[in-house]
Amino acid sequence: MSKRVAVLTSGGDAPGMNACIRAIVIACKKRNYDLIGYLHGYNGLIKQESISLSLDSTHNLIQQGGTVLHSARCKAFTEEAGLKQAAANLSEAGVDALLVIGGDGSFRGATHLADHYLGQIIGIPGTIDNDIAGTDATIGYYTAIDTAMNSIDKVRDTADAFERIFLVEVMGRHAGFLALNAALSSAADYVILPEFFESPESEIKKILTQIHAQRRVRGSVSFIVVVAENVWPQGLQALTKALNDSGITDVRPVTLGHVQRGGTPVSNDRLLATSLGEYAVSLVGTDTSNVMVGEVNREPTTVPLTTTSDSKPLNSAQVALMKSIMNERYG
Amino acid sequence: MSKRVAVLTSGGDAPGMNACIRAIVIACKKRNYDLIGYLHGYNGLIKQESISLSLDSTHNLIQQGGTVLHSARCKAFTEEAGLKQAAANLSEAGVDALLVIGGDGSFRGATHLADHYLGQIIGIPGTIDNDIAGTDATIGYYTAIDTAMNSIDKVRDTADAFERIFLVEVMGRHAGFLALNAALSSAADYVILPEFFESPESEIKKILTQIHAQRRVRGSVSFIVVVAENVWPQGLQALTKALNDSGITDVRPVTLGHVQRGGTPVSNDRLLATSLGEYAVSLVGTDTSNVMVGEVNREPTTVPLTTTSDSKPLNSAQVALMKSIMNERYG
Amino acid sequence: MSKRVAVLTSGGDAPGMNACIRAIVIACKKRNYDLIGYLHGYNGLIKQESISLSLDSTHNLIQQGGTVLHSARCKAFTEEAGLKQAAANLSEAGVDALLVIGGDGSFRGATHLADHYLGQIIGIPGTIDNDIAGTDATIGYYTAIDTAMNSIDKVRDTADAFERIFLVEVMGRHAGFLALNAALSSAADYVILPEFFESPESEIKKILTQIHAQRRVRGSVSFIVVVAENVWPQGLQALTKALNDSGITDVRPVTLGHVQRGGTPVSNDRLLATSLGEYAVSLVGTDTSNVMVGEVNREPTTVPLTTTSDSKPLNSAQVALMKSIMNERYG
Amino acid sequence: MSKRVAVLTSGGDAPGMNACIRAIVIACKKRNYDLIGYLHGYNGLIKQESISLSLDSTHNLIQQGGTVLHSARCKAFTEEAGLKQAAANLSEAGVDALLVIGGDGSFRGATHLADHYLGQIIGIPGTIDNDIAGTDATIGYYTAIDTAMNSIDKVRDTADAFERIFLVEVMGRHAGFLALNAALSSAADYVILPEFFESPESEIKKILTQIHAQRRVRGSVSFIVVVAENVWPQGLQALTKALNDSGITDVRPVTLGHVQRGGTPVSNDRLLATSLGEYAVSLVGTDTSNVMVGEVNREPTTVPLTTTSDSKPLNSAQVALMKSIMNERYG
Repeated sequence: MSKRVAVLTSGGDAPGMNACIRAIVIACKKRNYDLIGYLHGYNGLIKQESISLSLDSTHNLIQQGGTVLHSARCKAFTEEAGLKQAAANLSEAGVDALLVIGGDGSFRGATHLADHYLGQIIGIPGTIDNDIAGTDATIGYYTAIDTAMNSIDKVRDTADAFERIFLVEVMGRHAGFLALNAALSSAADYVILPEFFESPESEIKKILTQIHAQRRVRGSVSFIVVVAENVWPQGLQALTKALNDSGITDVRPVTLGHVQRGGTPVSNDRLLATSLGEYAVSLVGTDTSNVMVGEVNREPTTVPLTTTSDSKPLNSAQVALMKSIMNERYG
Repeated sequence: MSKRVAVLTSGGDAPGMNACIRAIVIACKKRNYDLIGYLHGYNGLIKQESISLSLDSTHNLIQQGGTVLHSARCKAFTEEAGLKQAAANLSEAGVDALLVIGGDGSFRGATHLADHYLGQIIGIPGTIDNDIAGTDATIGYYTAIDTAMNSIDKVRDTADAFERIFLVEVMGRHAGFLALNAALSSAADYVILPEFFESPESEIKKILTQIHAQRRVRGSVSFIVVVAENVWPQGLQALTKALNDSGITDVRPVTLGHVQRGGTPVSNDRLLATSLGEYAVSLVGTDTSNVMVGEVNREPTTVPLTTTSDSKPLNSAQVALMKSIMNERYG
Repeated sequence: MSKRVAVLTSGGDAPGMNACIRAIVIACKKRNYDLIGYLHGYNGLIKQESISLSLDSTHNLIQQGGTVLHSARCKAFTEEAGLKQAAANLSEAGVDALLVIGGDGSFRGATHLADHYLGQIIGIPGTIDNDIAGTDATIGYYTAIDTAMNSIDKVRDTADAFERIFLVEVMGRHAGFLALNAALSSAADYVILPEFFESPESEIKKILTQIHAQRRVRGSVSFIVVVAENVWPQGLQALTKALNDSGITDVRPVTLGHVQRGGTPVSNDRLLATSLGEYAVSLVGTDTSNVMVGEVNREPTTVPLTTTSDSKPLNSAQVALMKSIMNERYG
Repeated sequence: MSKRVAVLTSGGDAPGMNACIRAIVIACKKRNYDLIGYLHGYNGLIKQESISLSLDSTHNLIQQGGTVLHSARCKAFTEEAGLKQAAANLSEAGVDALLVIGGDGSFRGATHLADHYLGQIIGIPGTIDNDIAGTDATIGYYTAIDTAMNSIDKVRDTADAFERIFLVEVMGRHAGFLALNAALSSAADYVILPEFFESPESEIKKILTQIHAQRRVRGSVSFIVVVAENVWPQGLQALTKALNDSGITDVRPVTLGHVQRGGTPVSNDRLLATSLGEYAVSLVGTDTSNVMVGEVNREPTTVPLTTTSDSKPLNSAQVALMKSIMNERYG
């Protein structure tokens, strides 16, 4: 039986969202499902702004960063009236299943929508932060690691030339996935993560120990500290000042910023996005609803939307490795 | 108790081999193990060509393609005399554990060496082909996918401009991992894989069906066929001719070639190489030997070296997805 | 006074053609000129296939490889009837000026069109080969150098690992610009150029001299030969065989192929394309016609279309430098 | 007659400095000149820290960012005693010619050194800022444009997704070369340059005009402002606030920072660095001294070191083009 499917992107954009939209278009076409795309996240749902998505729109879409459906915050969707309006619009449009590509804020919204909308709701994890429980990785996460790593590779050229200390702030919201993986893959000397942050004093002390140990053994050297955003009180400037006050004067802060959200997706994000898009559409018409699709151990899976904001641990082997680099290398 | 560890790289080089060497150096330093690096694969073992590997040698090593230990084929190692000489040299050098970074040919050699050498032998999977059982991915595989994908992205620019058919040959030895992932991530229209190759006639027929279907629906279009190496009898030129003979005249063959083996490794290869190097050294001094370390479901694991050439299946969801693209999209 | 302008892309596509189209759209908009884009090179002119180009179409166009107007060969345009038809169509469409982005074959066509069409004809040099007299560089040339160079950087990783000889064929049609610049910028050891090719025997002899000299001084080493296409009789396989026959056995050929035509343009190509597009439109309405716009010493300039196929010399300082690398380095 | 040459890198590092060092090594080898490299800029000259540079050190050097000779500021070199010590050390080491790769601060130092040192002094322009008179481009400039452009390409993905205003600060010290070229090549909507900065009020007014015009014509859109560093009073945060105060609320600032100094050099920087290194060495032994080598209209040239800090104008065609984009596009 034919179905009517809708898709939207919500929350911070992430490389691979377009690849996921493309996969959804193809998967719907294959099954003869109608597909509409709502624009500007939940705003388009409330304001009935939508476009139809045909096969032609998928050409050269897999490699584009950003999202052709646009994204936006939507205050109205946090209120009863907005949710009801959205549900009414979906019913009026005859939408059987709504696919939401986004992060945990978007899934919280979707959960509330489910109180008013009787169709299927399926979440697809799209965020560079990887802070969504129920999937090993989120769409955009792999590209963001590579973007951060490549930037740190460049920073190291300058750090080595001047034998300076560089502080590099990477994104991640309140999780350390991106910072930890960027630090390990770029051979950074130290990382400050929300999951293990004790106090400014203890971090400064450890950084100083490492810098002094390296300088003792190898002479003047470069030293790169990766700092997850939202961890250090008052930010990178405060950390720079704290190091200056401790006698480490040649410190340069770099905030990678929104560059990390863009760019053509790497293969892993394109493959994940393609796989999740296909899987989400394959669930349309089943009695599975209010779930997020994810990939665990390379197999597609679903979890209730309500559990996607559960705590998600860092990889313990990676944590142990980074800790050993930060603590023992020159001990 | 301190140990003496040796490492070598063997077989085709792969991006991330240097990242693995770096991790091994750091892991040995942490445990106060001595570490020597044999040069030119098993040749260095037989000819006693080696270098010492210190922490200083690891600086800026993680991002380098190739292998600082060099690699080479070694005919002498396929013979009894060579194996005995290698074993004698290892004993004389007091090597407790030999780490071999390479592919299944290298592991076969390592297995034979174990008949003569009493120390530990630990394999680490390094090849862009991903054709090693016992690990989800091999070092270099992720980078090769991205290299192939980025090249196909460029080919598509020209294919679109001229609305031509392009045949792109990618590596993979006798396995389709690289070709399948490159095809899916670059939105190729067709892929020819060793795992599903029936006959030239049936493949040509399917390709023609797809091209004609697309042209019927969308007019003149570009069409990209990814071809795994060693599959098509007589190679890409023969496939080009076969298509010409079938009335498809505007066909251009592109062989990506050795470009796929080089380049700075992507983050996933750096992380895998770092994790496997650390894990391999952690096994030194245990009674685990004649194994390959690998990563399965993001956890380190070991399998007997003798099982690494077992058959390893493609990801079934990916296969189904690609098949649906090739068969049903315009059906 | 308002004008009606047409643009088409012809010949081999080159990165930056889209950037040039974008610049032309903006330049026309600024002057309130109408602009139409003919599709598929001169074919669109003959078959009256065209699209209108608005400001909206320029969004995110500057970074796209290929050409949104498509390109194609056009046999009909080499015949009187085709030229007359094209001229008639241009007149009927009220086109005051035709801008042709392409190479010297395209400009030859434009020159013949001028016998039948009374409007302005302005050529813009777009080809990765840089073989157009009257401009220091052609649109696409800079990107192709970087693409070739980056590929050779990757090949070197493997060449170093195995201490092998690699032959890398790069494009350039019958000119050595691309090969020479790719060789110099990738620190290749040898280059074979159409401008200086003597005989297979003498080239082989020089290559052998270099390889033996390097091996004498530095032991086994990698060695990279960049080969311009269309120079070596019977191509790369023949050169490989000739080296094998001379006792150099570990030779690997790599043909970069159409990858060199695609990809997002580098900044120099975007800037050149933007500058030439703007300049071409600025000439509309003047009495300048049957010219190609170009950039010489960073200033815009024009030359008669009939002189664009004149011989264009390589940079003499670059030639001297490469020759000294090939002849004297280990002398 | 054989010569003794010395080289150092000074000031901010730039991609291509290593390529230049490589060219100098090869050029010296060719002429049988001795070559030493002083470390850490002028500090190494004063403290007699140097290394010898052999052909082996040039392998895989052309593609490395940073500088293997390191760089540093040198306060001692601004004082008489330091200059005298440096001159004495050069004489004692028997250095006939000192090559200084750096920017105008480095050349000022070199000029002062000439009061005490009788050997040749030859400057080579190396800085991403391109603010050196007497050469069309400086080593590192081309790579920095591409790095900035590629970063802005990524920012645009996010800007488009959210239809937001982004402010992107790029380097350039007190010159607008980098900002102007990054803006033009990334199709930015507005640029703020030191050369044309009038007042915060007038810039804000113009930006508002452009944003409102675009929104009127195209609806909600993204808008990218490239801002040269050191221009806006109190920096990017102040500009963000000023726009907020003017009713433009969705503004995001991004400071690209030191990422722009690093990375593997693009072909144009490798070629320029190679050409200038060769040319500088070719002048050793002539009576040319206290000059900087440069490239003007693709030919090598020299200018007195004292003139390198003269004012250097932006390209007037580029300025006109950018102004037309900022003023007239939606007028």
